[in-house]
Amino acid sequence: MTLNSQSSTKVNVCEAISQLQILLQERLSTAAVIRDHHAQDESFHPPSAPDAVAFPKSIEEVSEIVKICAKYAMPVIPFGTGTALEGGVNAINGGLSIDMCQMNNITRVSAEDMDCSVQAGVTRRELNEYLRDTGLFFPVDPGANASIGGMVATRASGTNAVRYGTMREAVLALIVVTSDGNIVKTSTRARKSAAGYDLTRLFVGSEGTLGVICEVTLKLHAIPECIASAVCAFDSLEGAVNCVINTIQMGVPIARIELLDEAAIKTINDHSDLGYAHTPHLFLEFHGTDASAKEQANTVQELAAELGGSDFQWALKTEDRNRLWRARHDFAYAALAQRPGSKILSTDVCVPISRLTQCILQTKADIATTGLNMPIIGHVGDGNFHVALSVFPEDKQEMQLVDDFNHRLVNRALEMEGTCTGEHGIGVGKKTYLVQELPAAVEIMKLVKSALDPNNIMNPGKVL
Amino acid sequence: MTLNSQSSTKVNVCEAISQLQILLQERLSTAAVIRDHHAQDESFHPPSAPDAVAFPKSIEEVSEIVKICAKYAMPVIPFGTGTALEGGVNAINGGLSIDMCQMNNITRVSAEDMDCSVQAGVTRRELNEYLRDTGLFFPVDPGANASIGGMVATRASGTNAVRYGTMREAVLALIVVTSDGNIVKTSTRARKSAAGYDLTRLFVGSEGTLGVICEVTLKLHAIPECIASAVCAFDSLEGAVNCVINTIQMGVPIARIELLDEAAIKTINDHSDLGYAHTPHLFLEFHGTDASAKEQANTVQELAAELGGSDFQWALKTEDRNRLWRARHDFAYAALAQRPGSKILSTDVCVPISRLTQCILQTKADIATTGLNMPIIGHVGDGNFHVALSVFPEDKQEMQLVDDFNHRLVNRALEMEGTCTGEHGIGVGKKTYLVQELPAAVEIMKLVKSALDPNNIMNPGKVL
Repeated sequence: MTLNSQSSTKVNVCEAISQLQILLQERLSTAAVIRDHHAQDESFHPPSAPDAVAFPKSIEEVSEIVKICAKYAMPVIPFGTGTALEGGVNAINGGLSIDMCQMNNITRVSAEDMDCSVQAGVTRRELNEYLRDTGLFFPVDPGANASIGGMVATRASGTNAVRYGTMREAVLALIVVTSDGNIVKTSTRARKSAAGYDLTRLFVGSEGTLGVICEVTLKLHAIPECIASAVCAFDSLEGAVNCVINTIQMGVPIARIELLDEAAIKTINDHSDLGYAHTPHLFLEFHGTDASAKEQANTVQELAAELGGSDFQWALKTEDRNRLWRARHDFAYAALAQRPGSKILSTDVCVPISRLTQCILQTKADIATTGLNMPIIGHVGDGNFHVALSVFPEDKQEMQLVDDFNHRLVNRALEMEGTCTGEHGIGVGKKTYLVQELPAAVEIMKLVKSALDPNNIMNPGKVL
Repeated sequence: MTLNSQSSTKVNVCEAISQLQILLQERLSTAAVIRDHHAQDESFHPPSAPDAVAFPKSIEEVSEIVKICAKYAMPVIPFGTGTALEGGVNAINGGLSIDMCQMNNITRVSAEDMDCSVQAGVTRRELNEYLRDTGLFFPVDPGANASIGGMVATRASGTNAVRYGTMREAVLALIVVTSDGNIVKTSTRARKSAAGYDLTRLFVGSEGTLGVICEVTLKLHAIPECIASAVCAFDSLEGAVNCVINTIQMGVPIARIELLDEAAIKTINDHSDLGYAHTPHLFLEFHGTDASAKEQANTVQELAAELGGSDFQWALKTEDRNRLWRARHDFAYAALAQRPGSKILSTDVCVPISRLTQCILQTKADIATTGLNMPIIGHVGDGNFHVALSVFPEDKQEMQLVDDFNHRLVNRALEMEGTCTGEHGIGVGKKTYLVQELPAAVEIMKLVKSALDPNNIMNPGKVL
């Protein structure tokens, strides 16, 4: 079975677009500038523009759109904010990009149940700004101000996942439009359920290949009484990583524990003017009551001190904390700023925590052999780290070096019982690695894909 | 499409059994006593014996068994400990029961990664006894000493889920045998992953209808420094439930918070000789460092006192704690003991926590109209509660009363955006309620089922 065969033709596409124009009027665009804006995410993967872009305002409209696309076998590519890193929104077979930005209503917040429902186009910052007065927050934080729908689609996680989990844990229920235009609610708002197959989790991480995510019901969390961020410099990379491992193994419920090696520190120093020492660092955050946050911090400070870590440099005020994490989140943009016109290429392996030191040290040694500047940053509490580069895709020689390096890194992670992607997804970039990682599972995934999208119109050519 | 059509015939079954006998020899049984033992779980659903029972010792043997069954269109029914409550193991179309009890090896424990891999037949008590010296434990606790494979299949949860999550959160990876006999590993050991569709979660809760769960990789947790259990008596049911809601809304990371109404207290008093007052109670447990457990307990004690709760009666020693929770877990057996020869019928709704008081009080009033003794017990921190009865299935009049009551209860929960089953699963008992709860989703579930099990040999007639 091949999942890439498309029966759409130019004639079909023209017909589909004219029907979509009747439905959406000025909210259907074929302008080159709009199509180009939807041709790629933030990564190095080559852009590929859709034939048209739709801006629906309701689930019912998405349903009508997909029905038209299904009739004409026109590919459907859901689009959030375009901040992903594996080419998932690139319209590699043409088709219709469905930009969810006008579906940005927060439809319900229940402070009592600590949950909310939002349309897919709401961004995580919009949601947290809206929630501020409720005493609740939505913790999943991939750095970029991604849309909630996009975060569902890629099973996003980020800095807070070590304590609060990923989108896998954050989503209670979804409303999706499937490949035939049907509107499907996957679950109720109950906190737990044994009611049939877990379709919610099936769509979380499906990268637009099984349906269009339109509405998301999310778990929220109480804003902790105490939020305390700290920075800790280490003598060695090994000491910093071992501190992370010990912290996790002690069961400290730390909220964030992020590694930046000396190259990463240099990158953010240059960009954000922070003046950190050029040594490996951990950026930390503790959540809890005043007493429990203090207890956690004392435990980690003791562990750090034994492993060559400095006294914590605290960021307790909101503006100081925001400055610290903004610097961390802007890492990718800092790397791009070093090489104007470049694109992001980020590796994304995740390994069992017992293998993390070995994996990072071997990778560091491997970086040295390439002669390239490749900073390491990572959500190390989960065993996930990135080697993030700014590249010029047209520089074939450099791209080959990086590609070979990434190949070795993925193989290293797989040998350590890890995964090729902790949070960025498969997109177009990791399809062969997925087969290498889970060969028999991929055959089951193909069966699921064919069952739910028999004509392969949903984001074709991605994941499988 | 009907999922119940079976093309197996007596001739096919005889052929299949003779081939299975060659493969398994004395580990394939057609003895009536063995078949009868595999005809039902602990519930009131009518028994239905399989044609034969297999006792495999390895994943490869399960694969060979399923290949033979596939060849002869013989239904395959995975069997753990038979402690479920919705008839999931009953061989309603005959076929082969695969009893996993001889696949009971704990194949790997990594204290450093806080995970382990076990064969599906390992029970949760066996696992925790094995883990005791490692400082780790496996928290999911449905009461019964279920097999891990069975707990995966039903997406089990229980008393600890409010803090540690359900099997949905506990499972890192699975090895399953699919309907064609293929052996499929669903994920790696990485703590998080964005590598394709979440097949792990698809199989968790699939109740044997998509494949045979053979090996399970589980997250483990550090045994807390302090484990403190307490009992709190309340003046009113409303006060007890509101105390739960306030505790959850305050974000207290309580490990267990179980409601028993006065009828439930009377049942366990009679059985376990505990001498509690005949009023609603909460059974509580706090996990943490000494300081944080104390802080949590103080918070909940204050909330309870404001809502008519007594001073906590503490169970701090291991044997006292075990006695307390054994009494709670033995509730179902206590109910059966009141009516010798009876069977368990347990409702299982789960609602958003803001609706819990209303749902329980309306249900309590409804119970009064039936004239039957129906205790309420519940994992109320998740919004999940059971009305648990001992029934005589042949008493048609009583069964009709109970069935009507359950029907009203499920409708009440669905109107409150809840689910018909928080943890027991669909089995044969809740198929129509599943359609009522998630009509469009059921159609997607059927597509998945047909794709993965086109000949409908995997536990046919269950879930869908």
